[in-house]
Order: sequence, then structure tokens, then C-alpha cells
Amino acid sequence: MAPVKNSRVLFVQPPTGYPQPGVNTTFDDSQMIDPDTVSLNGGFLLKTLVLSIEPYNRGLMMFGYQKGLPITSFGFGRVIRTENPDVKAGDHIYGMIPVQEYSVVADKSEISWFMFLENKEKIPWSLYVGVAGVPGQTAYCGWKEFASPKKGDVVFVTTGSGPVGATVIQLAKQDGCKVIASAGSDEKVAHCIKFGADVAFNYKTTSLSEVLAKEGPVDIYWDNVGGETLDNTLLHAGKGARFIECGMISVYNNAPPVMKNMLQLVTCHIKMYGVNVSVLLPKYEQQFYEDVPKWLAEGKLKYLEDTRSGIEHVEQAILDVQLGKNIGKVVISVADDC
Amino acid sequence: MAPVKNSRVLFVQPPTGYPQPGVNTTFDDSQMIDPDTVSLNGGFLLKTLVLSIEPYNRGLMMFGYQKGLPITSFGFGRVIRTENPDVKAGDHIYGMIPVQEYSVVADKSEISWFMFLENKEKIPWSLYVGVAGVPGQTAYCGWKEFASPKKGDVVFVTTGSGPVGATVIQLAKQDGCKVIASAGSDEKVAHCIKFGADVAFNYKTTSLSEVLAKEGPVDIYWDNVGGETLDNTLLHAGKGARFIECGMISVYNNAPPVMKNMLQLVTCHIKMYGVNVSVLLPKYEQQFYEDVPKWLAEGKLKYLEDTRSGIEHVEQAILDVQLGKNIGKVVISVADDC
Repeated sequence: MAPVKNSRVLFVQPPTGYPQPGVNTTFDDSQMIDPDTVSLNGGFLLKTLVLSIEPYNRGLMMFGYQKGLPITSFGFGRVIRTENPDVKAGDHIYGMIPVQEYSVVADKSEISWFMFLENKEKIPWSLYVGVAGVPGQTAYCGWKEFASPKKGDVVFVTTGSGPVGATVIQLAKQDGCKVIASAGSDEKVAHCIKFGADVAFNYKTTSLSEVLAKEGPVDIYWDNVGGETLDNTLLHAGKGARFIECGMISVYNNAPPVMKNMLQLVTCHIKMYGVNVSVLLPKYEQQFYEDVPKWLAEGKLKYLEDTRSGIEHVEQAILDVQLGKNIGKVVISVADDC
Repeated sequence: MAPVKNSRVLFVQPPTGYPQPGVNTTFDDSQMIDPDTVSLNGGFLLKTLVLSIEPYNRGLMMFGYQKGLPITSFGFGRVIRTENPDVKAGDHIYGMIPVQEYSVVADKSEISWFMFLENKEKIPWSLYVGVAGVPGQTAYCGWKEFASPKKGDVVFVTTGSGPVGATVIQLAKQDGCKVIASAGSDEKVAHCIKFGADVAFNYKTTSLSEVLAKEGPVDIYWDNVGGETLDNTLLHAGKGARFIECGMISVYNNAPPVMKNMLQLVTCHIKMYGVNVSVLLPKYEQQFYEDVPKWLAEGKLKYLEDTRSGIEHVEQAILDVQLGKNIGKVVISVADDC
């Protein structure tokens, strides 16, 4: 095989507001690689197949990426050559991998969240970065650990058409709850309803307070948004409500919010839980992989993907996720051989 | 007995800032009562002995008190006459009682938190509105339910010389924690040290962030303050920290705070719990009354009282508590016959 391009996305500098393509990162297709001959030095060559773009990419720009090196992201690839006895050619490897087409990896310890994917259930491979990957695990572990759902509880889920929110909607419905979902466009709202939400609204055109005043009070709040949305939801919390704090996309790129209703924590004796999937996963991982791929294979768990082909779309995808311009889980299809 | 004055504090209107004597409440000593002859209509006559002034009094001005009627507060009195078979003359009755010298009570259902006090341990009676009453219960129940203390955990307690904070300091020390306490004067700080705090500081003259950066990170935060103090403490939270939200005195009288560090909830997977003692008490009440009066009788639990004699000092005491001008638990000694 002749040398081919090894396109990649390099880190430049942390953003102050929204992460800008070409400013905070840069796309570079100047590097060449010959997959047949590149020196492995005892390691293995991973061909990137799928990358996952999520809100955390901006967070990693603040403290996780190194200037001049490829950014990393969850994704998976296929081992095409190996000198490392721990992996075989053909293995599918999931984890936090470099955003480039080919990576020479010394050892599996170089990849955080390293996991072999087997896909016995024959679900679409891309789901392993979405509902069968970290976003699904986040929803599953956070819900199981913190929601304490009772039949008929009122659940409010933000970013209801995203991979975490969509999964939470469905877990809440499995547990007999009434689900209110919000999203940022009428199209996304329609998807929330397809996922099973009893009530869904476009927060850009509909008053959250009016909806929650009518449909609440809220027993369980799944927060992917933070800021003013969290503050307003506090005002509509039921006694003993559980607030599951999964993300705060409204505060990543904007000025910090004035919080008027924090006293509701005391008044309504709310429990508020920050979700860290890496802390919770050891407790739930086995059950997750028993449940979720099966539910997906059986069509019992629905999902929505926003697939973009080519690593050159990564930077725009990172920005789109921060702006909410994606419709469903953003998947970058880098190569097609799985 | 000739008629005597029945002095009382009447509610006027909710405060917008600090509660002002004569503006939001008014002291009235125009009412006369003859304890020997006043008609009981099947009820009983309670002579108020002790009243407790606490931060919640301002909260009740916002939604709990009725204009033109006496405000209520935790306290206890002695039954001096009765036509009600449920109570005997001489009984000491604790609960949320009217702030007046004498009250004709139809039935015990009229007094929320109604309880007979027996004081078998012969502790000072006034402690039954403090460390052996609701403030002590709040500390005890909140700590037992939410703190999950491990030996060596770093605990940060605000308002460390108040009745809740002082009790939390001592419970945390019982559990082998390192305790940092804050208070609003050097005199109060000295009391925090007497209660057992390992580190104590005057938040008006010492930087909270510097103390917590040096002594933290914080595993357990007992919050009586809210606002900027809560926000700054979020920045010094350890992974998996527990934030026990008991009160937010900094926000009752002031503009709502900008919260810069809410994302720490997610980043540090913090658990934040609003404390409502009435919800928790059924689970812990028996143990509380087995432990606390005994500890007090044995000198194992320390306390600090700020005693003021006469119901005419109630209004100023309410304001002082909001301003932090009290030193320890504010007790209004109304009459002396117990």
C-alpha cells in the first residue's frame, strides 16, 4: 500500500467562548502514513472507524488537550497490524482515542476507557459510541443510582433528543414515570415524543415555567443544561425531589448565572447529585451490557444519530454540539470497514 | 390574681430586606389577661417560659405569619390551668407557640411540633429550644442522614458558634473528622475552637478560599450560609463531597448570588442535600433523645446561649440573628417558673 494521508485535528488553544474551528483547533492533512510499513515498535496500528463528538470535548480543551497534538475523543477503531500480544489484527477497540485516521499505539494503557468491542448482538457498530457507549452508560448509571423513581413520578429531562436525554426519557417510562422533555427546536421536540415523552416543548419558544407550573411539580430533574434552566426548575421542584446533574451546557460558553432559587434546595429538601459515569460504571457495567445491546437489538430502546462522514467535520461538530445544532448523537464516520 | 399584661409581638408585613422592629412586627403590651379567670372553653392556659429565635423567623414572615396576629416561634411553656384532659397543670409543653406571655390553647393540634418535656436528665430547661430541641435535631438528623463521614474526612462548618454549627462540629469530631469552622467575629471563632474545631476563622477578615485551599479539599460541607460562601466552597470540594444544605442566611436579606462554580457539582460528583428536620426526625427522634440530653448531662456536648430576658427583646433578637449579632443560641427568657 502506498502512503496515504493521516488527517487529524490538532489542539491550538483553549476557547474563551464557543470553540471555533481553526482558532482553538486546526484540521491538518499534511501528515502521510504507510499503514503497511509504519514502524510499530512493539505496539499496534489502529485505524479509526468512528468518533464521538460530545459536550465534554470543550471541557477537555480547558484542561485535557496538549497544544500541537491531536485532540482525543471517544471512538473506536480496528487493529490492522500488531506487534503487541494483547491485541489481534481485526480487534475493534473502544476508548478515548486520538482524532486522526491512523494511530500507532504502544499499549492499551495509552487509551483511557480501553475496551474490546465484540458486538455479539449485531447492532449498528456506531451505537457503541452512543446509547451503548458512554452517553448511554451515563444515562443508565445516573438513573439507576440517583433517580429513586416511583410510579407516577414527574420527570423533567433537558436536551431530550440528545443521546443521554433520549435514554433517560425511555428509562423513566420503563419505570412508570410521567416524562416532560425539553429541546431546542420543534424537530427535536418531535423526537422527544417519539422517545416516549408525555409532554415535550421547545424551550426557545415556550416558557419552561409555564410548562412546569402546569405539568409539575418535578420529582426527578435530569439536568444537562444548568444555569437559568436549573434555577427555574428549582422553583417547580416537589418536596424531596431528586436533581441529577449530568452536565451544564448553558454555562460552558457563557457568563455564570444568577441563581435566584437555591434556597429551594432547603425548602423542598431536594437531593442534588453530580453524575460521574467513571465512578458509577464499575457498579453497573455488567448490567448495562446485559440490558442495553439486547434492548437495542430487540428495538426496545430507540436512538437518534446525526452522522457526518469524514474527520474534516470534527471541528464543526464540536461547535454544533455546543450550540445545539446537532439532531441526536453526533457520530463522525471516519472509515467504513466494519 | 389581678389582671396582668399579656405582652406579645404582632406581625405587620413581610420584610424586603432585613426584618425591622416596629416595621415588620410590632411589640404590643396593651392586652390584659387574668390567668385565674380567663375563659378556657375546654382548652388550657399556657404560660410562655422560653422562646427560641432563629433564622427561620424571617422565612415565616414571608409566608407563615398572619397580619395582626402574634408571630409564632419555637418555645415552651407551662400549663397553669386546664379543662383539656390531654394536658395537666404543670406540664411543660414544647412546640411552635405564639410569641405572647399567655396563650389559651384549644387543643394540642393547635401547636405544631407539640411535645411534652419531662427533662429527666435535669439539664437546663432552655436547652430544649437549642441543642436538645430543633437546632440540635437539625444538626443530628442532617449529619446522621447525609454526612457519610469517614475518619479523617475534612468537614467545613459555617456559623460554627451557632447552635446547629456548634453541634455539627462536635458530631464531626465524634466521627474522627478534621473540622474547619467559620464564624463572623473573633469571639465566635474562639467558641468554635472550644467546640473542638481544628481550624476556625473569621470570614470577615480571613479569605475563605485561602483557608480551604490550605486545609481542604472539603469532603463534607455544612452550609448555613449559601450564596458566595457556597459558591467558593464548591471550588474547594473534594471528589464525591457531600454538601449538606441546612440554611442560606446570606440570601434571605440580599440580592440573589451569581454562582460561578455550579459545574463543580458535576466535575467533583458532589451530592447536595437539603435538610428538612421534620422529614428526618421520625427516623432519628428516639436516638436523638437517648443521646443528646444524656451527653448534655454528662458534659459531653457543649453549647453556647445568648439569653435575653423579656418578650420585648424578641424583635431585636430576630434582626440580630439575621445580622449575626448573636453569640450562640438566642434564648428569650420570658418567665422564670420552671
